[in-house]
Amino acid sequence: MRTRVGIIGAGPAGLLLSHLLHLAGIESVVLETRDRAYVEARQRAGVVEHGVARLLRHSGLGERMDREGITHDGIELRFDGRSHRVDFSDLCGRSVEIWAQTEIVKDLTARRLADGGQVLFGARATAIEGIETDSPRVRHTLEGREEVLECDYVAACDGFHGIGRRSLPEGVVRTFERLYPFSWLGVLADVPPSCEELVYARHERGFALHSMRSEEVSRLYLQVPNGTDPDDWPEERVWEELAERMAVPGWELRRGPLTSKGLTPMRSLVTEPMSHGRLYLAGDAAHIVPPTGAKGLNLALHDVALLAEGLRARYTHGGTGALENYSAAALRRVWRAEHFSYWMTTLLHTSGDAFDHRLQLSHLEYLASSRAASTQLAENYTGLPHP
Amino acid sequence: MRTRVGIIGAGPAGLLLSHLLHLAGIESVVLETRDRAYVEARQRAGVVEHGVARLLRHSGLGERMDREGITHDGIELRFDGRSHRVDFSDLCGRSVEIWAQTEIVKDLTARRLADGGQVLFGARATAIEGIETDSPRVRHTLEGREEVLECDYVAACDGFHGIGRRSLPEGVVRTFERLYPFSWLGVLADVPPSCEELVYARHERGFALHSMRSEEVSRLYLQVPNGTDPDDWPEERVWEELAERMAVPGWELRRGPLTSKGLTPMRSLVTEPMSHGRLYLAGDAAHIVPPTGAKGLNLALHDVALLAEGLRARYTHGGTGALENYSAAALRRVWRAEHFSYWMTTLLHTSGDAFDHRLQLSHLEYLASSRAASTQLAENYTGLPHP
Repeated sequence: MRTRVGIIGAGPAGLLLSHLLHLAGIESVVLETRDRAYVEARQRAGVVEHGVARLLRHSGLGERMDREGITHDGIELRFDGRSHRVDFSDLCGRSVEIWAQTEIVKDLTARRLADGGQVLFGARATAIEGIETDSPRVRHTLEGREEVLECDYVAACDGFHGIGRRSLPEGVVRTFERLYPFSWLGVLADVPPSCEELVYARHERGFALHSMRSEEVSRLYLQVPNGTDPDDWPEERVWEELAERMAVPGWELRRGPLTSKGLTPMRSLVTEPMSHGRLYLAGDAAHIVPPTGAKGLNLALHDVALLAEGLRARYTHGGTGALENYSAAALRRVWRAEHFSYWMTTLLHTSGDAFDHRLQLSHLEYLASSRAASTQLAENYTGLPHP
Repeated sequence: MRTRVGIIGAGPAGLLLSHLLHLAGIESVVLETRDRAYVEARQRAGVVEHGVARLLRHSGLGERMDREGITHDGIELRFDGRSHRVDFSDLCGRSVEIWAQTEIVKDLTARRLADGGQVLFGARATAIEGIETDSPRVRHTLEGREEVLECDYVAACDGFHGIGRRSLPEGVVRTFERLYPFSWLGVLADVPPSCEELVYARHERGFALHSMRSEEVSRLYLQVPNGTDPDDWPEERVWEELAERMAVPGWELRRGPLTSKGLTPMRSLVTEPMSHGRLYLAGDAAHIVPPTGAKGLNLALHDVALLAEGLRARYTHGGTGALENYSAAALRRVWRAEHFSYWMTTLLHTSGDAFDHRLQLSHLEYLASSRAASTQLAENYTGLPHP
């Protein structure tokens, strides 16, 4: 099998890349290990930056988001028993869309298939070869057979555990990493959210986040030690802990049945460069952010927008400048998001250190009293226009 | 000997407190271990916040500062071979005064003595007693004799190594501390500054700072490992390293003879509460900041302004509310400064960690491109009006 761009992974990055290439008249094939139902059910992020929402709209993917999603003009910070709203619209004139990654994946999959796109589910990529030649190949297994996808370029959108990152030559690649001594216990609950906007709570017992998937479904998180067994957190304990960490006078947490419960480890990781020869990495394949700040999905979609633009230029007038600049350009935004995510993580999670504890409280009080400090949060959270 | 307020330490905090009390008609005695010449020669900070400059002027101490000091409307950040100016006036409408602590001490000493104030040099405080009674006492030695200063209140302005902090009862006091794996090698040089404003440079080899004492005297600092022996840094090596860390195209570092060389360890420390019974701590006796951000002197003078106000209220109409609130009010500003100093220290000093390194560069690029981020630096550096 031969195509122009071989894409590994049918997550939001791989699917959007394939879609953007299609709009530019460039053929691609997407290889995805899992089946369609599995991919469409994966619970992931749910906050779409201002600029990414615009990108989705401009590429014809905004209709359902604008109809069923929720526009948020701010978030609420809670600390020391008090509450402070960060008003994005007022501070930086932008907002975010609450629209689950899983819905974006559903729309993208339907659209690619409707457009005759080749998305091969159950196709496990096993090796990427010849990336320093003009005709790289992706070896994969499909329905028990060994297959080869020959292409001009390979885009690895195959996540943290994929083969993309591991296919960069050892002497070329550098990895930057930070681990954290805590994880998130995340739950989905069939109960209307107890707040209109996301609530980020810093409490001595640990961080808590109240998010939502829709008007009927709440998404909530608790900071827990690494290695926590979700089974140690029965429904009652989850609600009690959430209520305590998010308590402010006059506010009540609505409770309902939990439909999912899972542990998310926290990690910061960046691979440099994000390309080598004819192989390009995008999204989690190249970088991981801790979920505080909601940057993972957004970075992945920014990556593929840049990559699609580079490939469009290459196939339209033959120029490879944008492709050659892909890694450097993507990394500028990646590091901005890494810094912001690290900043927001350390602002809100307890480390057990008394000095850190006092710094956090002073920092949060400052955020609540300084327009400059609040604006910094707002402009990063909603997504900086540049780079 | 008996007085209303016994003050330990004739640094800027103790002297200003004594002066402010005098202006309010309240008698005090200052005990200082060292002699006058030593105290007036101590090299310390040199950046005076906007609000502290106003405080000095309002209490009649601004004349020489305004004549001989230098008003700075910004600082320069250097990183990655480039330069970015943070324009304080434009960003927050405030500025700072370059005016050495040692000059403030000279003015204050002269003024206290001219006003008939009692500043006892060579008086070493050895114990603070009876702080939970209405008549605390400061035991001290003076010219070989054991003496007792009886007073209504004791203000310990005796620095990090003084007896003030150690006189708070053990069960009452809590200490918050952060150590850093680096120090500053500081030099004074008889050479006109090579820059009009302070230059804060972040370089892979470590932080460097170009400051000044006057139009003829430069003050420069280099990040070095803890335990560095200044003798390992002969003049030539100091200048070479400064030139390398601060290099930007088209700029040259003027060199001249070094007149002083010393090591400053970096530490963050806060004592809570800052008062107990009739004992009040101010300045370094209660808290230490790393020198990045130039907050130490400013915090000390803010402390004693608050304390003088509390004592004035107490002696004017008998109300003790402001005195009782002293610790809480002072600590709000202290923690703001602790956070800012920690932030600026970790932004600019190299830790050897590759992830931190990349975060710093992204953070600095962001500071150079975001008005909100620059404003946050500017408003903290020049001094927040509240609390």
